[in-house]
This record gives sequence, C-alpha cells and structure tokens, in this order.
Amino acid sequence: MKRTKIKPKSKVWIELEGVYLMGDGRAALLQTIDRVGSISEAAREMDISYRHAWGYVRKLEARLGMKVVDTQKGGIGGGATKLTKRGKDFLERYLAFRSGINNAIDEKFARHFGKR
Amino acid sequence: MKRTKIKPKSKVWIELEGVYLMGDGRAALLQTIDRVGSISEAAREMDISYRHAWGYVRKLEARLGMKVVDTQKGGIGGGATKLTKRGKDFLERYLAFRSGINNAIDEKFARHFGKR
Repeated sequence: MKRTKIKPKSKVWIELEGVYLMGDGRAALLQTIDRVGSISEAAREMDISYRHAWGYVRKLEARLGMKVVDTQKGGIGGGATKLTKRGKDFLERYLAFRSGINNAIDEKFARHFGKR
Repeated sequence: MKRTKIKPKSKVWIELEGVYLMGDGRAALLQTIDRVGSISEAAREMDISYRHAWGYVRKLEARLGMKVVDTQKGGIGGGATKLTKRGKDFLERYLAFRSGINNAIDEKFARHFGKR
C-alpha cells in the first residue's frame, strides 16, 4: 500500500438553518475588510468582485439579524469600514472553532495511516 | 445572533497523490460488499450502479497496488466476494481515522458557539 502518499483532506463550514453561512474564505474576507477598512479594497485583495463581497456581507447581516460591518464617515478620503463589536465577536468564534481542526485531523490520520 | 440555529458541517476524505481515494460513501460500499458477499448486491443496497461500484473497486485496487476484494468460487449460487486481509486492514484504518472526527468538530463548535 502506498501509504505515505495518502493524505487526509477536509472542508469545514457553518450553516444557519441548513444553509451555508460561513467558511474559511468568507471568514478571511471579514478579516481583510477589518484590516484594510474597506469592502472594495478587501474584495480587490481577495480577487473577488465588489458586488460579491458586499452581497455576502449584506446577506450575512440579514441572516444573523445584526450589523456585522460599520462605516464611519468623515475625513479626507471618506470613512473606514470596520467590523462591529458583534461582527468581530462572531468572526472570532468562528476562527476559534476552526483553529486546530485541521491539526486534529492530521494527527488522527497519522495515528492510523502512519508507518509502524 | 441566532446562535442556537447555527451548526458545524464538514466533509472528510483521503487522497492519494492529490486525487480522491476514499470518503465515507466509498468506505460504506466496501463494508457492504464484505457484509453481503457481492459487489452487485452491495451496489443495489446502496442505490448505485453495479458498473460504478465495480469501477471504484477496480480503480482503488489499481491505485493502491493491491487486491482489495477477493471472490471465492464454488458452491450453489456461486462464490462470495469478501474483502482481502489487506483490503480489510485499509478499510479499518480509514474508519478508525474517520471515527470521532465529527464528534471532535461538534465539541469544538459547542465550546465556541454554545450559550454562555
């Protein structure tokens, strides 16, 4: 058996009422929005369309029933878009849930498919 | 946040040299073949075509470079198809790797998205 060339793979995401809510890509989008302070700049950086990025954020807010991003007006060049406190809390829960799962899967795999 | 209606989801599988090798459905097919003693009956029970089931087993054997199933001839009604020793060992490694991963994900989810 070519055991050493076998690798475990996984996808993890969360659903709300049976419908996709957030995966790693969308979580990264929220992180990027918060870091760069702009949905359009975050979309550019992640190589997705502005329409796509904005549509996701709006839908996420509607489905969660809360504001996830907030745009502060004012200043030269306009305001910055940041995650709200609750948006940040939600993202952090997702990231904390997510972190370590791949490692756990890799370790479990090595235990059963590793050399003996 | 409608936190109680959010659920974690995942898919787990293994790949050989970057190509899909086995997931839960195919593992269940091997288990069923061994239990019912026939690829065609196992395919019927799992509601997939015989061609599909047999094709998968043959491809799995070719890619692993070992026999996974073995048909014993003889007796009224023909012989029984069973997993080989190595096929069974491979399946058991997969199942042992797989078992508990969903529970681990569910527990990790509850820790971060559960009520406080």
